[in-house]
Amino acid sequence: MDRPERSTAANAQLALLLEVSGTPKPGNVDREREYDDLRFEHFMAGAAGARDGLELATGDEPVGRAFERAVAGMSHQRGGNTQFGALLLVTPLAAAAAQGALSREGARGVVADTTVEDAVIFYRAFDHVDVAVDDPPEGMEPLDVRRGSEAESAIRDRGLTLKDVMEQSTDVDGIAAEWVDGFPRTFEAAHGLSQSDGPVANRASALFLALLASEVDTFVVTQHDTETALEVRDRAQAVLDGDEDPYDLAREFVDREINPGTTADIVAGALFIALERGLSV
Amino acid sequence: MDRPERSTAANAQLALLLEVSGTPKPGNVDREREYDDLRFEHFMAGAAGARDGLELATGDEPVGRAFERAVAGMSHQRGGNTQFGALLLVTPLAAAAAQGALSREGARGVVADTTVEDAVIFYRAFDHVDVAVDDPPEGMEPLDVRRGSEAESAIRDRGLTLKDVMEQSTDVDGIAAEWVDGFPRTFEAAHGLSQSDGPVANRASALFLALLASEVDTFVVTQHDTETALEVRDRAQAVLDGDEDPYDLAREFVDREINPGTTADIVAGALFIALERGLSV
Repeated sequence: MDRPERSTAANAQLALLLEVSGTPKPGNVDREREYDDLRFEHFMAGAAGARDGLELATGDEPVGRAFERAVAGMSHQRGGNTQFGALLLVTPLAAAAAQGALSREGARGVVADTTVEDAVIFYRAFDHVDVAVDDPPEGMEPLDVRRGSEAESAIRDRGLTLKDVMEQSTDVDGIAAEWVDGFPRTFEAAHGLSQSDGPVANRASALFLALLASEVDTFVVTQHDTETALEVRDRAQAVLDGDEDPYDLAREFVDREINPGTTADIVAGALFIALERGLSV
Repeated sequence: MDRPERSTAANAQLALLLEVSGTPKPGNVDREREYDDLRFEHFMAGAAGARDGLELATGDEPVGRAFERAVAGMSHQRGGNTQFGALLLVTPLAAAAAQGALSREGARGVVADTTVEDAVIFYRAFDHVDVAVDDPPEGMEPLDVRRGSEAESAIRDRGLTLKDVMEQSTDVDGIAAEWVDGFPRTFEAAHGLSQSDGPVANRASALFLALLASEVDTFVVTQHDTETALEVRDRAQAVLDGDEDPYDLAREFVDREINPGTTADIVAGALFIALERGLSV
């Protein structure tokens, strides 16, 4: 039978779709839980809109431009920021895959090749959607990502590449930490996915819980505080230990508006790698 | 803000994603109900894989080729036939939209323009996936769609266009009936969607129930029999009348493997039209 493989861009999009299909994922939107103003359907629309940008990532377009297009397309729905972090993780991985180099080394190469232009365009992506971020450290106000395209001259004056920008956020942003170190957690998680079996959505939600228990989620730190993030980590561990019910925890976290978004992003990145390596759905 | 509209192909894909996101949809896979061998994630993969074909439909490619590509891409998952009928409905509508003619008249034009080549390639789509169809009427065996690409010479000998092929199935296939008559139910359903409010997935599931109560589902006739299809129609009406619980009905239909697939396909087509006309997600 003539059944073509899914393209790399299709796998990148499918990773977003499968990530949100896993349930339960305590605190995040999934098939069975949503917020009034951030619903499952917003993630569907975000993924559909992001596809053109993902196609650019697997073509000849620089990573910054591809990411900005993906975010612009994603933003065409009423839920706001659905997949900004997931796209930030998946875009360089898709570029590496398109170069036949979907490995930590290959991803490192994509990051090392980013330019000042990529950094400028990365900031522009923040014009499209509100992303929850902390105030920048003292002296870094001109580079506050919330300035979006207005930060352009500050970036150019300092000659910062997109890799340089990421290096300044590794302490407070788990995605940036992945970017500058060859995506260690993402590749490790992809390996775990490939080793597991059963429906992919179930494997994704199990991975989510395991990752949540293993490190504090930087998005929870930003949205709430370190204490809350530590609680989230410990209670995910309690679920793994059989001491808490994941569905109850999911309900409670949604009520408290605790969104472990960085962990979900890493699941999306891991799903992409696993799909590229032959994970069957 | 620079927030580009979703492309027509993206809307076509999003229509598939939103259709399966609606719940409850008695008998069909949705966010909360699935079969062991046909899961929600198969629909995600089907939609991701179909995108390239949908892009062709909005380009210069003939409808038959675009459809066949969409089905080939859709088939790259383990669930089997997830969205064959939905794609058959959405593909000509996407072509009409790309011509700036998303109306019953415009869609009629797309169908009238189909060629023998489109018919041949349409049959080829059946090579990619098993589709439940009835035996053909006596004398029509050479044109049994299950012959797939082997039917090519029979089609060419008789000089059948894709429209001609559809005309022979209007009695037994609700999608074919839509094709040859300017998609009347689909356009009417799209109008209903645009008039309703609330989350789009909820509007889609409400539309599904209303359509299910209004006509027998031809896929249920094919899969089971006319008696079952009549029962499905009447019990959907009972839900609308408040005499049956939709969740109980959904559970029962899944247990009995009753899949009102044609109705779901029309919902997908209606969602596409509504999205193109500005329905916000």
